[in-house]
Amino acid sequence: MTTQKGFDPQAFRAALGTFTTGVTIITTRAQDGELIGVTANSFNSVSLNPPMVLWSLAKNARSVAAFSNSKHWNVHVLSANQEELSGRFARQGENKFAGLELDEGISKAPLLKECTARFQCRTAFSYDGGDHIIFVGEVLGYDHSALPPLVFQSGQYALAARKPREEVRLGATPPPECNYTEDLLGYLLGRAHYQMLYALRQMLSTQALDERSFFILSVLSIRDRLTLEELNAFIDYTGMKASAESMAALEAQQFVALETEGEDLRYVMTADGREASLRQIALAKAVEEDMAAKLGPGDAMALKLLLKRLIASSDPGMPDLWSAR
Amino acid sequence: MTTQKGFDPQAFRAALGTFTTGVTIITTRAQDGELIGVTANSFNSVSLNPPMVLWSLAKNARSVAAFSNSKHWNVHVLSANQEELSGRFARQGENKFAGLELDEGISKAPLLKECTARFQCRTAFSYDGGDHIIFVGEVLGYDHSALPPLVFQSGQYALAARKPREEVRLGATPPPECNYTEDLLGYLLGRAHYQMLYALRQMLSTQALDERSFFILSVLSIRDRLTLEELNAFIDYTGMKASAESMAALEAQQFVALETEGEDLRYVMTADGREASLRQIALAKAVEEDMAAKLGPGDAMALKLLLKRLIASSDPGMPDLWSAR
Repeated sequence: MTTQKGFDPQAFRAALGTFTTGVTIITTRAQDGELIGVTANSFNSVSLNPPMVLWSLAKNARSVAAFSNSKHWNVHVLSANQEELSGRFARQGENKFAGLELDEGISKAPLLKECTARFQCRTAFSYDGGDHIIFVGEVLGYDHSALPPLVFQSGQYALAARKPREEVRLGATPPPECNYTEDLLGYLLGRAHYQMLYALRQMLSTQALDERSFFILSVLSIRDRLTLEELNAFIDYTGMKASAESMAALEAQQFVALETEGEDLRYVMTADGREASLRQIALAKAVEEDMAAKLGPGDAMALKLLLKRLIASSDPGMPDLWSAR
Repeated sequence: MTTQKGFDPQAFRAALGTFTTGVTIITTRAQDGELIGVTANSFNSVSLNPPMVLWSLAKNARSVAAFSNSKHWNVHVLSANQEELSGRFARQGENKFAGLELDEGISKAPLLKECTARFQCRTAFSYDGGDHIIFVGEVLGYDHSALPPLVFQSGQYALAARKPREEVRLGATPPPECNYTEDLLGYLLGRAHYQMLYALRQMLSTQALDERSFFILSVLSIRDRLTLEELNAFIDYTGMKASAESMAALEAQQFVALETEGEDLRYVMTADGREASLRQIALAKAVEEDMAAKLGPGDAMALKLLLKRLIASSDPGMPDLWSAR
């Protein structure tokens, strides 16, 4: 426990930062007409009846006079896609509103678009809060969208992964002597992946294709004209291997053709193969949209973000399918 | 935009709820010595110098007198594991502190354990906030731990999935005509899963085992004495299939033995097989701990939560490996 005598502002800030918040931009119009806006995470709700919210602003902020003199200000709860806007309104000196389309509001305070929620307020009280002023506003109007909100925690932007009201159980509790639990990341990744492949596999079987063929066609749809060796470099990470025999099956189905280029034999996708691949992608996207809908858009974004971070931190050095040759 | 005349408290609350917060429990000791505590998400930081925080409490709350009379209160930023505590302090009437161990604090206000952060405060100001009182406290002492914090958004608990400062890129940007993007959940799940298997596969090859054998041994380690058909029911979701031939290889390695039981032939794990399986689990756990460390504990929790939700919502009806026979 650090007591006040030894307060280091940076350490105190770090402790405060563990309290998660959303991110807001709060705007007003100065008496000279200038548009004013600041990024703040000190926002919170106060009262339901009358409807009131609050936030606090440093007494030495450039915008103090504008917010103190103007009676009206708008709070914008930023969406997950507005990280850039958050950064822009947190910095000083630039024309923060450049290029932004504004909505008509109740007051003359600027009203930004595409936020998760907006509260149009009139100052009810302004209170002393140490080196900050606490503005309490009566909410005159509000709206909100279905856009997932941006989150801020310990100095970093974040997305929320919502917990359902009941704990998610995937099966019976394993007996205590069991070394596996359903909480193992490897198990969860595998099962989620295989379940996603399950629907895909059903479809592949109707086209007389297997998973390996699916991967081969996917790679060729991105990078055509590959030797068997090059092809294998791209699917190696799946643990599958393309052989001359497995390619012969795809040739027999007329999805792939073999062409000679100098000394090399190269596999080329046929028009039929390209069509089959497009059908596969369409199904993969449909399976995926269905899953994202079940999770919710914000949670699906969070899952993709975490998977990308996991992939980036565990990449054993995969060849980049999309890089220039 | 809803204007004030038509404010429906529930709709207004829903709009306010889009602003993400942490969850706190704020405690004090009443003049008669009674321990008081309430769950609040209206907490926020106010001032760095002097160090100040605020929160608000409904004027009709039972604890108003205690917080108004006592000059000292403690704010506990709850960790992701303290959801139960949050619920307990949000309800009325029960002995909220029953069974809780308390720490010694600066004041007589109770100090809870195992939180993400704690702030011990003395009331600096109490302000009118509509149907709430805003308490501004001077922070006399604080501490914080590395425990990931609990998050609250739109009426649900959540965990934060942190965004790194730089966007995570897994490879070059695909050309616009490409139908695949690295933002497809199926691709990300597959790649994350395969990368996790990569390290595992390296090890398996040193034991002359393949992935199918790994799955077979895993299933037998949980459910021994299975017929080939029963075994396949459990690994079917992986797309792999155990055949009499693949089992013969495991028999030759003396990991598995075939026993007759009535009309059935059943596969039984040998002591060697059990040992090999334990080695595999140990490696799988090591790979996993390494990955969780790279993501951070809170993010690893969030990833597991989202994967479980995805699995639960996309389960094609997998047999439960752990259920009673």
